[in-house]
Amino acid sequence: MTSTTRRQVLSGAAAAGAALLTVSPRAARASAPIATQQNAGFYRFKVGDIEVTILHDGARTFPYSDTFVKNATREQALAAADEAFMPKGMVTVPFNPTLINTGSKLVLIDTGFGPVPNAPVGQLFPNLKAAGVDPKDIDIVILSHLHPDHINGLRTADGSIAFPNAELKAPAKDWAFWMSDENMAKLADNKMMKDYFDNTRKILGGLDARMTKYDWDKEVAPGITSIAAPGHTPGHTAFAVASGNKGFFVQSDVTNIPEFFLRNPDWHVAYDFEPELAAKTRHKFYDMAASEKMLVTGFHFSFPSAGHVEKDGGTRYRLIPIAWSAAL
Amino acid sequence: MTSTTRRQVLSGAAAAGAALLTVSPRAARASAPIATQQNAGFYRFKVGDIEVTILHDGARTFPYSDTFVKNATREQALAAADEAFMPKGMVTVPFNPTLINTGSKLVLIDTGFGPVPNAPVGQLFPNLKAAGVDPKDIDIVILSHLHPDHINGLRTADGSIAFPNAELKAPAKDWAFWMSDENMAKLADNKMMKDYFDNTRKILGGLDARMTKYDWDKEVAPGITSIAAPGHTPGHTAFAVASGNKGFFVQSDVTNIPEFFLRNPDWHVAYDFEPELAAKTRHKFYDMAASEKMLVTGFHFSFPSAGHVEKDGGTRYRLIPIAWSAAL
Repeated sequence: MTSTTRRQVLSGAAAAGAALLTVSPRAARASAPIATQQNAGFYRFKVGDIEVTILHDGARTFPYSDTFVKNATREQALAAADEAFMPKGMVTVPFNPTLINTGSKLVLIDTGFGPVPNAPVGQLFPNLKAAGVDPKDIDIVILSHLHPDHINGLRTADGSIAFPNAELKAPAKDWAFWMSDENMAKLADNKMMKDYFDNTRKILGGLDARMTKYDWDKEVAPGITSIAAPGHTPGHTAFAVASGNKGFFVQSDVTNIPEFFLRNPDWHVAYDFEPELAAKTRHKFYDMAASEKMLVTGFHFSFPSAGHVEKDGGTRYRLIPIAWSAAL
Repeated sequence: MTSTTRRQVLSGAAAAGAALLTVSPRAARASAPIATQQNAGFYRFKVGDIEVTILHDGARTFPYSDTFVKNATREQALAAADEAFMPKGMVTVPFNPTLINTGSKLVLIDTGFGPVPNAPVGQLFPNLKAAGVDPKDIDIVILSHLHPDHINGLRTADGSIAFPNAELKAPAKDWAFWMSDENMAKLADNKMMKDYFDNTRKILGGLDARMTKYDWDKEVAPGITSIAAPGHTPGHTAFAVASGNKGFFVQSDVTNIPEFFLRNPDWHVAYDFEPELAAKTRHKFYDMAASEKMLVTGFHFSFPSAGHVEKDGGTRYRLIPIAWSAAL
């Protein structure tokens, strides 16, 4: 092999660029123009008889803020970002709801950001359409917890319910926490928490009668069992999904991005309400997922947002993403 | 968190199944039927001004054969498959050509299996269509080497050239090797090699005048430089692609599946003609890719088949897949 280096590669490019300047504009145009359309963001797989569709709501990339990880230095956090080859000095957080057709019910777990003008998020609805799913066909919407990126897709731009025929389900503990005016008043000095409380009222206001509040360790849809995973929020919930002798976990936000918090499960993401409890939940959940070798879908895993968890030494974990399969 | 175990998850499923038996067939049908359509297998990203489209030709999953890795035990090989969560006792090999729009030329590197009835491969053409690309628009087809999964897509089912307007390019060293009747006669006792020689004649026969034979360290298309990567075949070629100060590598078959041969670069895959040389090429290529932190696309990497290589200890490597981005 040649000893081509980055510099040689790039000087080769410069030479190529110079060469292009000597040809006519017409000859310098490929037969096909540069495309502008990315593939749709949905991915399907079967688990036993049920069909899972991961739906990409988009991703946000932002300059690293020192408050993102509360108990790691900027250097430590950016080293983790570098190890994941994120853009220099930046962090990318993706958002991916999970749709499950149990055969008897079409169940959407979490709803993304909903309509946000000029934002790289809110793509759940075009991706549902690309996947051939009409929001009217969704039988049950289950919220894992009541943060904006999980609940805001419940409402269309005009404020109506985006899933008109669906039963809506929220964790009882999260509903009680976020809908308490006493809690809201108590935490009003915390800007992030105030925004969260305001948002729950904007999105969930008027839905008390329609919303089914579910407890942990219950079957919240056929074959879908709620699992207590508190810490991120008081009522944050993961799910075990089963079909015959096959199953998988929907982890919701047991971690935010795995590149940071599965590699470093004791790091505290800014959005965790009770960070020590969240870290404890993380260890328990991933110890279980690793020892059971269960497939896990994660709202903040890179699309297609499913993989297996392996232990890496005593207290760290690594996500092994599933291999894309065109076959269903 | 609860102490839900795999057994509990699955017994929950059984309970759910039993519950379903008590409801009417109508009520047990979700509003939407189980879908049968996977998402299309194409994925785009920009590198500088050029646009890359990875195209999935499909994947083959087969029971592990002891001849797949020539210098590892069945136990070692299946342990690597288990670590990658491949189906028990099986190995999956995917196939993913790379399309590059340089702005001046639309360049396809490798062509997949072409039309194979009832096979999980040969999906390049439907995926090109899904990506909005007409095979007639491809200006240059570059073959990295002359194995069937890379060249057979050159021909349609009726034997005509699938890319009628393209300049066709093959590595001079591979062309000389595979088109030599003397080599063919010498290696006729080796069933795999005999099949390979027969296939080159079937697909490439009659194309000698039309085929441009390229050397290493040459610009084979604007901004695309051929890199010597021998071992897999005598003329096996990787590519450096550059645009401005950005670039990436097309590794072709420097490894077969990274889950085996990037984790264990000294393992010899059955298809390597000169396995020691292939292993040497592998180390040089990945040492360079890791130190340069260059993006690499790999024909046998899981779709979308692009990632960065990190060193893992002295002689092992790990692929860090790129994060899916809906934004171009």
